[in-house]
Amino acid sequence: RASTMQRAIQEENYVNQPPVTLLRAGIDTEDTIRAKFEKVIRDAQDSICKAIEEVDGKKFHQDAWIRADGGGGISRVLADGNVWEKAGVNVSVVYGSMPPEAYRAATGNPELLKNKGDVGRVPFFAAGISSVMHPRNPHCPTMHFNYRYFETEEWNGIPGQWWFGGGTDITPSYIDEEDMKHFHGTYKAVCDRHDPAYYEKFKKWCDEYFLIKHRGETRGLGGIFFDDLNDKDPETILKFSTDAVNHVVAAYCPIVVKHKDDPFTEQEKQWQQLRRGRYVEFNLVYDRGTTFGLKTGGRIESILMSMPQTASWLYDHKPAPGSREAEIMDAFRNPRTWV
Amino acid sequence: RASTMQRAIQEENYVNQPPVTLLRAGIDTEDTIRAKFEKVIRDAQDSICKAIEEVDGKKFHQDAWIRADGGGGISRVLADGNVWEKAGVNVSVVYGSMPPEAYRAATGNPELLKNKGDVGRVPFFAAGISSVMHPRNPHCPTMHFNYRYFETEEWNGIPGQWWFGGGTDITPSYIDEEDMKHFHGTYKAVCDRHDPAYYEKFKKWCDEYFLIKHRGETRGLGGIFFDDLNDKDPETILKFSTDAVNHVVAAYCPIVVKHKDDPFTEQEKQWQQLRRGRYVEFNLVYDRGTTFGLKTGGRIESILMSMPQTASWLYDHKPAPGSREAEIMDAFRNPRTWV
Repeated sequence: RASTMQRAIQEENYVNQPPVTLLRAGIDTEDTIRAKFEKVIRDAQDSICKAIEEVDGKKFHQDAWIRADGGGGISRVLADGNVWEKAGVNVSVVYGSMPPEAYRAATGNPELLKNKGDVGRVPFFAAGISSVMHPRNPHCPTMHFNYRYFETEEWNGIPGQWWFGGGTDITPSYIDEEDMKHFHGTYKAVCDRHDPAYYEKFKKWCDEYFLIKHRGETRGLGGIFFDDLNDKDPETILKFSTDAVNHVVAAYCPIVVKHKDDPFTEQEKQWQQLRRGRYVEFNLVYDRGTTFGLKTGGRIESILMSMPQTASWLYDHKPAPGSREAEIMDAFRNPRTWV
Repeated sequence: RASTMQRAIQEENYVNQPPVTLLRAGIDTEDTIRAKFEKVIRDAQDSICKAIEEVDGKKFHQDAWIRADGGGGISRVLADGNVWEKAGVNVSVVYGSMPPEAYRAATGNPELLKNKGDVGRVPFFAAGISSVMHPRNPHCPTMHFNYRYFETEEWNGIPGQWWFGGGTDITPSYIDEEDMKHFHGTYKAVCDRHDPAYYEKFKKWCDEYFLIKHRGETRGLGGIFFDDLNDKDPETILKFSTDAVNHVVAAYCPIVVKHKDDPFTEQEKQWQQLRRGRYVEFNLVYDRGTTFGLKTGGRIESILMSMPQTASWLYDHKPAPGSREAEIMDAFRNPRTWV
């Protein structure tokens, strides 16, 4: 039965030690954005995991694999930690081919394939880092980030394309305005260093992207999100992406350290579990990375590392008017400006 | 933000008491299959809820609503029961219109719209009962059933169509062969009374439908499932559907009564929670009723009543070889014949 599943990418082969690079020898040379981006995300995986381990006291477990034609991945998971119920940081490099419709959707340029006839599947390269961290304490927010770089090769007369995507966003169960000013403020400063228009644009994009449409509410309290970014030269956007992924720890860890020992009631824990249920709804129904991954036969355990360890659903639950739960529900329904 | 959500069906108006009928006065007269089917599912809702309350000791809570142009629903939920963590039984009657693509897919007959030009949205009637019950004890299985009747009106020269769909299926965390023989045996007997070919066909359909494709495993241990059924006259299929929905209690309740006080370990409870996580994955990613409901703006709390009260995900969890968990995993990967 498992064998009837269509896989768009090759089977993975587990390795004890991840190779120094997941790139293709002789092709993805040092001077390419592909090679530079791989270094950025692998360094980020190391430094972020180290910072999290210092706060938690427990270590990440690592799984690494490679694929026959190049590419591979490194999944790091800290399960049942002291501070985090589950924290995962994935790095992956994928060489594959996508159908023309996917290519058209991804590039956002319908002109590219015009009058080209049947061009077949377009070869692509994708590298990315993605992470979700679910703390135990209901006063500590969940955090997610993802930074990726995409390239298509020149193919049947269609020029090669490239773009960056990514973002960091935060999902508290309760509003702490100071924390939100710190988190959004950190990313506003990062954005402002690269383009004064970025923060406003990417903050709005984040609120729109993480909308749970069937509920009319956002998953969390936002952050930044961008996709198909190629409006400046690639080196310039690489610098911005690097700066953004390198500020995950500064934006998030102080909030967790501040709240990890906060006292909490059973009711507050239950509310966190309900919000985790919403997290599951968003990821399985709307998240592009997750839904794409499930359909194309990527490594399921890495894709679903984003699931919380525990989640809950109650029928028709409504927070009491005036409660702190009602307060954050209002912010999920009407995204606010924090900085 | 909520107002930007597209609703394909009208807003619901809550009522304290559900009306005697959710049908349209003077149109859906007593002699129509629509009226007969509504009676079947409302009677089944009453009798099934009564039987569940007798086992559990706690009562269902009821929410009822109607829509301006006819139709409505009755949701009954038993939350935090003695035996069931969450049990829900929904009845709904919907008058709406569907785009031609949906009509073509639903009827399975591409010829119907051939050379008809732009026919616009096709008016339909749909009535159904659906239910999911999640017990507390990991040795008591979760059970789901759904029976529905669909009709389209004659429209722009296209003749009206009708079909039945439904099924009952069971999702244990551990295999009890005797229980599976009882459950499948009950439905085999129901099927055999109406058509000797039904059980084998609908058992296989059930195994195929409830496959979690990205895992290569089924959600549970099956039962029966059928859709687009219109190969006999409607009165004949109505009799079969009636017989099937009226055997839910006989097929399921004895199993719950047998196991509701079974001792269990923390590890068994944890395994049940992981299987509930899989239940969530199936329902949010693949279940047609759920994904359709979320997209068309049906009543979210009724659609997601199927979610378990609690669910869990662990990274890369693998049951120990030879364990009872490994035993049922094998049956999820290689569906068995029980009777």
